[in-house]
Amino acid sequence: MKSKFIVIEGLEGAGKTTARDAVVRELQRHGINDIIFTREPGGTPLAEKLRDLIKQGIEGERVTDSAELLMLYAARVQVVENVIKPALARGAWVVGDRHDLSSQAYQGGGRGMDLELMKSLKQAVLGDFAPDLTLYLDVTPQIGLQRARARGELDRIEQESLNFFIRTRERYLALASADSRIKTVDATQSLEQVTAALQQTLNQWLQEQK
Amino acid sequence: MKSKFIVIEGLEGAGKTTARDAVVRELQRHGINDIIFTREPGGTPLAEKLRDLIKQGIEGERVTDSAELLMLYAARVQVVENVIKPALARGAWVVGDRHDLSSQAYQGGGRGMDLELMKSLKQAVLGDFAPDLTLYLDVTPQIGLQRARARGELDRIEQESLNFFIRTRERYLALASADSRIKTVDATQSLEQVTAALQQTLNQWLQEQK
Repeated sequence: MKSKFIVIEGLEGAGKTTARDAVVRELQRHGINDIIFTREPGGTPLAEKLRDLIKQGIEGERVTDSAELLMLYAARVQVVENVIKPALARGAWVVGDRHDLSSQAYQGGGRGMDLELMKSLKQAVLGDFAPDLTLYLDVTPQIGLQRARARGELDRIEQESLNFFIRTRERYLALASADSRIKTVDATQSLEQVTAALQQTLNQWLQEQK
Repeated sequence: MKSKFIVIEGLEGAGKTTARDAVVRELQRHGINDIIFTREPGGTPLAEKLRDLIKQGIEGERVTDSAELLMLYAARVQVVENVIKPALARGAWVVGDRHDLSSQAYQGGGRGMDLELMKSLKQAVLGDFAPDLTLYLDVTPQIGLQRARARGELDRIEQESLNFFIRTRERYLALASADSRIKTVDATQSLEQVTAALQQTLNQWLQEQK
């Protein structure tokens, strides 16, 4: 099977790290062992510097919505061109913690950024490049933020209002329902149930790729 | 007179710093004393961090043309929204060392970035915001780079090929000839002649604004 780019998406506290481990186990069960991980924003030294600027901001300076979006895409083009595409080309599978769908949901939905700009940015930066499969872990913001808070201090974006996350989730759900390459998993269930659902979804998808 | 945004543009070694001093003296001669300076990329703490990433890059990582362009615009929106617009609103004049024309010339001309993307980025980030006056200091790349080299080590962009700067200058000249708010000054002349030409251009423009 040709190597694939699988992305795990969802709100803060949706359980993306646990999901990643479940995805890797399932891939290995299918004999796929050459797997690399990426996270966005980040994944290259330059992109990680941008991640810090995006997540922490600068004391006393307002980060405009436009600057945030542009830094996210600058980081994305670096990881796509320098890491993801070369990995896929040499036959490795790539499992990504977030990718473009996050920008569509958080900046497009949560922040209400202009859709025309979002579209032309995505086209310019990514062209036709897209994940083969996206696993969207759906939680309510209430549950997700509660879990994220239990983990410790919240970063600049995690401190947004509840309404911001409600809009973000709505956009996630709308985009997932319109794209067959995005599979939604109910992540409000118990850990065991989420893991089972992920494995089943991934297993079925892998069968379809043969 | 309403406060204005005046930008000084040109290739490396065109003499932008000397020109800035001449512009300030001429403004002061007209009784304008509330003047702030900006430089791009940069001009806010976040934008200066982006400037470092753009100018120095990261050891061993290729900076893609798209990431460079997006970081430049991220820095630009920060300085425009957080510094330039508030200064103009309170009645200060702003003298900028580079602004959007640099991206049009270097990334649009030098790097040959897609014009549709350039246009939609500019529109999204700046809208109708534009300098009241741009003084473009025209030098051949040969002369400019010789002067820049004499100043010391060249940064990532200054190390580009001669052809890159030839394309950049061509785009500067083409854009200047199409926009009456951009005045071209021959910066291959002696320092005294350039200063005199700048003062005359600025003096005439200030008269026209009354």
